[in-house]
Amino acid sequence: MAVLVLDTLPHCQEWTDALRAHAPEMDIRPWPEVGNRDEITHAVVCFPEPGELAKLPNLKAMHSLWAGVDHATRDEDLPLNVPLIRMVDHSLSQGMLDYVTGHVYRHHLQMPKFEALQRQAEWLQEVPPLIEERKVGIMGIGVLGGEIAEQLAALGFNVRGWARTQKTIDDVYCFAGMESLEDFLRDTEILVLLLPNTAETTDIINEETLAMLPEGAAIINAGRGTLIDEDALIRALDAGQISAATLDVFKTEPLPKDHPFWAHEKISVTPHVAAETRLSTASKVIIDNIRHLDDGGSIDDVDGVFDPKAGY
Amino acid sequence: MAVLVLDTLPHCQEWTDALRAHAPEMDIRPWPEVGNRDEITHAVVCFPEPGELAKLPNLKAMHSLWAGVDHATRDEDLPLNVPLIRMVDHSLSQGMLDYVTGHVYRHHLQMPKFEALQRQAEWLQEVPPLIEERKVGIMGIGVLGGEIAEQLAALGFNVRGWARTQKTIDDVYCFAGMESLEDFLRDTEILVLLLPNTAETTDIINEETLAMLPEGAAIINAGRGTLIDEDALIRALDAGQISAATLDVFKTEPLPKDHPFWAHEKISVTPHVAAETRLSTASKVIIDNIRHLDDGGSIDDVDGVFDPKAGY
Repeated sequence: MAVLVLDTLPHCQEWTDALRAHAPEMDIRPWPEVGNRDEITHAVVCFPEPGELAKLPNLKAMHSLWAGVDHATRDEDLPLNVPLIRMVDHSLSQGMLDYVTGHVYRHHLQMPKFEALQRQAEWLQEVPPLIEERKVGIMGIGVLGGEIAEQLAALGFNVRGWARTQKTIDDVYCFAGMESLEDFLRDTEILVLLLPNTAETTDIINEETLAMLPEGAAIINAGRGTLIDEDALIRALDAGQISAATLDVFKTEPLPKDHPFWAHEKISVTPHVAAETRLSTASKVIIDNIRHLDDGGSIDDVDGVFDPKAGY
Repeated sequence: MAVLVLDTLPHCQEWTDALRAHAPEMDIRPWPEVGNRDEITHAVVCFPEPGELAKLPNLKAMHSLWAGVDHATRDEDLPLNVPLIRMVDHSLSQGMLDYVTGHVYRHHLQMPKFEALQRQAEWLQEVPPLIEERKVGIMGIGVLGGEIAEQLAALGFNVRGWARTQKTIDDVYCFAGMESLEDFLRDTEILVLLLPNTAETTDIINEETLAMLPEGAAIINAGRGTLIDEDALIRALDAGQISAATLDVFKTEPLPKDHPFWAHEKISVTPHVAAETRLSTASKVIIDNIRHLDDGGSIDDVDGVFDPKAGY
């Protein structure tokens, strides 16, 4: 009975220490100090070396440090007969809620426009519309997206949501399925992307869908870098079809120094911090799940188990 | 019985038209087309020529276009025996609520820091504290400031408030009086200024009070330009005592082209739009108040009557 922390990045020791702080009695080993592989019953999955998880014959569960699991599923030998648990952490959800709410206000209040006017020392009193007239659209209204949609509606925004399947959220008009995507986008002035990375969602924001948005719409991507066709976004910004974008996730991370997003006047880059896992709270979630399973608890009572068929 | 719209700025005709749209039956005159001064019973006060209001012997009430009344009280001959009514307009309060909430998030999420990092193409993942750890302080917790404090507390911020007199607001620790100012400022990471312009509040944010804030605090001024000693603020920003400021109001407006605020990297200038009066809703408020008073209604039932003793 031992826990292996799998990471090829230098955080491995940091995570091991944080986990040990919550569970001094547990045998927690930082990769590559694996010891006897038969003893490993839990793996904490950061950026594992592909093939490593498949070598653990007695694995009961894999615990991801993040809500998204691309870093684990890129491993072609991932043992999908073992449950993979996504991070479901209050402080992580709260961080995402705050990030999206703050950046929706940023676009609602036209901060990018006033910043551009300031560079010209230009005093131009253009008042934004009333909050109830501002149309915000959330793509991806699962548990977290739904909470965000609810908070924005409670603050007074005019909120609509879109998901693969039909959802019901108070004060939020919910669209479902690809056939309703155009109707959803047509009225969305501030588009928030919270979708997971699946075959269906790759480049879902492309030349065609960008053209469905009203002219001057703003985009916030706090979901996955794969959701956006990056060249198409730059063309739409340069043409004025999109007025501004806030991007927290990218096809390549860290965003390369020479990537055109860094210097683009209409793009705000944040370095994947919207839902950055916080060491102290996330390690507590993992330890709680390990204890639950080791005490004979059911995997069905654990939040965030990855569904390989749905892809999230 | 006539209404005079008093303004030396070019908006006078615009306001006259907006008021007439709500009350086609009223005799509404744009200054300087005064006609017989004895007939004027109501004055709509934008930027009046000093001395003009004192020449109206039958004035029942003066209706300000804004929540602040400095533009009226700078007139030394203002007839203070006549009620001066500040603008109390839902859309104006809502606009201020949205502005402050959005800019508090901007500083909470460290947007100015990420913007500076972006200019260097620097990927640095520094996560902000949890929202419940973020200390926001509101100076000026009257009706509007109190609403703002409540909303920020409901969103999860750690909120405190300060006012001249003791207030009580759910989930907000309220400080009162100059003797508690240092205690209030000492723990405030994001300071929001919403105070009115009075003799007591002029330059209330100065070298001494700026030094009371924790190092790296941020400031949002959505109250009055007179509240801040502008030179002291620039020195505190340059020294790093204050990390960033959002300023919507200034000692001189429009902010002069050569003012150092425009080009300062740590200052965001917005052109007095936080609570910009919206023509359509504000003119309706004024017409409703005029009708109420002309129908024999009491001034005590009107919201926002200016108190010359308190200065707001």
